[in-house]
Amino acid sequence: MTTTPAIPDSPTGTRLMDAAAQLFYSDGVGVGVEKLCKTAGASKKSLYEIFGSKDDLMAASLARSIPTYLAVLLPRAEPYSPPRQRILALFDNLEAIISAPTFRGCPYVSASMEIKNAEHPARAVARGFHNTLTEYFRDAADEAGVDDPGALAVALTVVHDGVTSRAVVQNHADPGLGRAIATSLLGGAGVS
Amino acid sequence: MTTTPAIPDSPTGTRLMDAAAQLFYSDGVGVGVEKLCKTAGASKKSLYEIFGSKDDLMAASLARSIPTYLAVLLPRAEPYSPPRQRILALFDNLEAIISAPTFRGCPYVSASMEIKNAEHPARAVARGFHNTLTEYFRDAADEAGVDDPGALAVALTVVHDGVTSRAVVQNHADPGLGRAIATSLLGGAGVS
Repeated sequence: MTTTPAIPDSPTGTRLMDAAAQLFYSDGVGVGVEKLCKTAGASKKSLYEIFGSKDDLMAASLARSIPTYLAVLLPRAEPYSPPRQRILALFDNLEAIISAPTFRGCPYVSASMEIKNAEHPARAVARGFHNTLTEYFRDAADEAGVDDPGALAVALTVVHDGVTSRAVVQNHADPGLGRAIATSLLGGAGVS
Repeated sequence: MTTTPAIPDSPTGTRLMDAAAQLFYSDGVGVGVEKLCKTAGASKKSLYEIFGSKDDLMAASLARSIPTYLAVLLPRAEPYSPPRQRILALFDNLEAIISAPTFRGCPYVSASMEIKNAEHPARAVARGFHNTLTEYFRDAADEAGVDDPGALAVALTVVHDGVTSRAVVQNHADPGLGRAIATSLLGGAGVS
């Protein structure tokens, strides 16, 4: 469903992806190739040789960031913790993320909104992150034995998207907000 | 709480705001002054004379769009419709908005995410829209007599933000999604 872009392994490629991840997040996707290369200490020639295009650098950089981001967002594997606890723990982790003063939105939701062309390769990467998140919720919802685990998983993903968006719009995180809404939805699905 | 920017009444000012609303939404906030002026058929001189800066044009243009947007999003005033119905009707209207092929996200959430500087005048305008939406939910929640109308109003705003964000990330709208999540939250708050 999602195309995974190639993530090059060269030191220059890595520096370019680091610069891209940092600059696109802090300054927006309009950051130019000139600034990217300067920050990375790389030539334009190497950017195009390694990635082919700025768009492909964006996609590779975003894809490369996902495992690190998920390591912070997803609760640590605790095989014996019940599904409800696994779901709510994710919202506690999310709260720590959105409370950071450097938070500018979920990097994947934000990239999707900033990149207006739905066919851009980075948009597929962002969708991949989103689907992974929904699968996490779906696994827990399945285990909890709810009537419609798919619907609950999508609803919890919407809460994730909404809580991160709200923190940007309001420029602050409301303490406990994600957990409270998720708790209500879990209650509605009979998970207590 | 929210500073309302001055919305000029001149034909040139209006053309510039129309061009800004259209281009920032379709192409992103990075659109340059040159292109804005060309699209509006206005000189740079008049842009700066009327608005002072591109930032202030963005804020004025966003502020000017709010009444039109709310007229589509908010259900028509039907004084006798019960609060639950008023809340759910908003999510039906939202579904029509997010199902349009030209949908690129809630214009106010999207502007907040794209403009990285939280002190930008357009960010205050976006926050104003967001607070108006929460107040709509709050009024209905108050009338429904729920225990914590403020919390329900914020949760419903999060659903709005999440459903619009999801439609962008996934590049399609899930039928009935906003209504279903709102229904669950209303049920949890005892509104049936």
